[in-house]
Amino acid sequence: MILDGRLVSGAILDDLQNRIANLKVTTQKSPGLAVILVGNNPASQAYVNSKKKACEKIGVTSFEYLLEETVSEAELVALITRLNADGRVNGILLQLPLPKGLNEEKLLYMIDPEKDVDGFHPSNIGRVLLGLPGLKPCTPYGVCELLRFYKIETRGKHVVILGRSNIVGKPLAAMLMQRGDGADAVVTVCHSAVEDVSYYTKQADIVIAALGKPEFLTADQVSDNVVVIDVGINRVKDSTSPRGYKLVGDVAYEEVAAKASAITPVPGGVGLMTIAMLMKNTLTAFCHAEGIV
Amino acid sequence: MILDGRLVSGAILDDLQNRIANLKVTTQKSPGLAVILVGNNPASQAYVNSKKKACEKIGVTSFEYLLEETVSEAELVALITRLNADGRVNGILLQLPLPKGLNEEKLLYMIDPEKDVDGFHPSNIGRVLLGLPGLKPCTPYGVCELLRFYKIETRGKHVVILGRSNIVGKPLAAMLMQRGDGADAVVTVCHSAVEDVSYYTKQADIVIAALGKPEFLTADQVSDNVVVIDVGINRVKDSTSPRGYKLVGDVAYEEVAAKASAITPVPGGVGLMTIAMLMKNTLTAFCHAEGIV
Repeated sequence: MILDGRLVSGAILDDLQNRIANLKVTTQKSPGLAVILVGNNPASQAYVNSKKKACEKIGVTSFEYLLEETVSEAELVALITRLNADGRVNGILLQLPLPKGLNEEKLLYMIDPEKDVDGFHPSNIGRVLLGLPGLKPCTPYGVCELLRFYKIETRGKHVVILGRSNIVGKPLAAMLMQRGDGADAVVTVCHSAVEDVSYYTKQADIVIAALGKPEFLTADQVSDNVVVIDVGINRVKDSTSPRGYKLVGDVAYEEVAAKASAITPVPGGVGLMTIAMLMKNTLTAFCHAEGIV
Repeated sequence: MILDGRLVSGAILDDLQNRIANLKVTTQKSPGLAVILVGNNPASQAYVNSKKKACEKIGVTSFEYLLEETVSEAELVALITRLNADGRVNGILLQLPLPKGLNEEKLLYMIDPEKDVDGFHPSNIGRVLLGLPGLKPCTPYGVCELLRFYKIETRGKHVVILGRSNIVGKPLAAMLMQRGDGADAVVTVCHSAVEDVSYYTKQADIVIAALGKPEFLTADQVSDNVVVIDVGINRVKDSTSPRGYKLVGDVAYEEVAAKASAITPVPGGVGLMTIAMLMKNTLTAFCHAEGIV
């Protein structure tokens, strides 16, 4: 079974679109998302464009701030302060990476946690680990929703996560070890300090690869009927492509797919879920700001 | 080897005492800890007394607020607000459990995160998961310091944690999966939704039991030379004791000790570390407030 990120994210966006249309009738308002992009990184520009398109599709008002690479930290501080106070803006997204010389951590963490639709703020990350409601980091949130959509049982299952990044591995572990439906898993987190990750991945009912190494996970490292979620998006050289590169995940797709009971493709898997969950967080922040449960 | 919480916590408290004495010379100030105790729970009274004694020993000024069980939530809100603003108070500790009818979560989370010496606030918990410096929850912090004191290698080792509480299991997992010395472990978290925890504990280099079940972990569930950390403190009936009960951990101590390379006793293990780390957090909060790195 292929876990189709396009299908699932599409279903989520359709649902959000309906809810936003209904809320517009009752509140006369729409959720607003401010996106701050500094410099000309082509990958960042592409991400920002996809986010803008998603906003348009579902009825979120987007506010774009395209800033020169030379913008000062003080100007960004002033902008974020203004957006924190702006009632039309429910979510604020600071597109990473920032040019050198700008303090990413400082700028990210000054976004009001209630507008932190990326779910990166320590208090939102803490709420995830504590099992409290709130804005959740989009990529791990998307992985959980994908598993939920396909009714893949996690309760009591052994989930092995490869990678301990702050935006995927660690918060995903935190989500899957909580009580309740779509969680209750036995979670093991592996990383670069582990000599033999295959010792763990072979035991896993579900393997989630999020280490940013092209085609790292091979068929000999997993058991038959494993579920594989591939969070990696890596550019590798490809002379046959007009762009000169192709996108591959952290999983050697063909050989692992032959062994797995379910697997996400790259592209078309987790990546699309991330944007859908960003939109979901924006609606959550809007509802919270409007006092709608 | 017995991992001696009395020895290690004593060494930590001695070190803190020296540092506080030196800081008094340079700043003319001492750290201050406010402890709020509501009602007459005997276990809570005993904890508060131990904390008070530790403060006296190392030179922390303690402010005690012993409130009637009938105190209103509004009065507690007013007290915490006042203590948040009080420059003499570097740490605020709200002793749990609170009597029924008081909203523990609301009251705990209104403590200024920079005075949250219990390390319970979402933003402090989030900082732990993100690997940022800050105030850490005392019991898991104490477990890490105990391992560090005895130079028990965690890098690349398989640590199996039994229990996923917000005050021990989950933050401890977060700490041990970070990069760096005293961490870098492969962490697996087991809990009540797992059918056979022995499948995991038998694989572990280090087992940490924090599930609150008297003598749960037995010798047949662990491998030879395992390191066992027992976080449990359970009262069980004991007709031979004048008190009518005895304290036991989550580990069947005698039989597991015979197999383990190292183990913590109960009492005399992790429990004493918790208070030492509370004192360490209080000094950290003081230094932060005074601008001392």
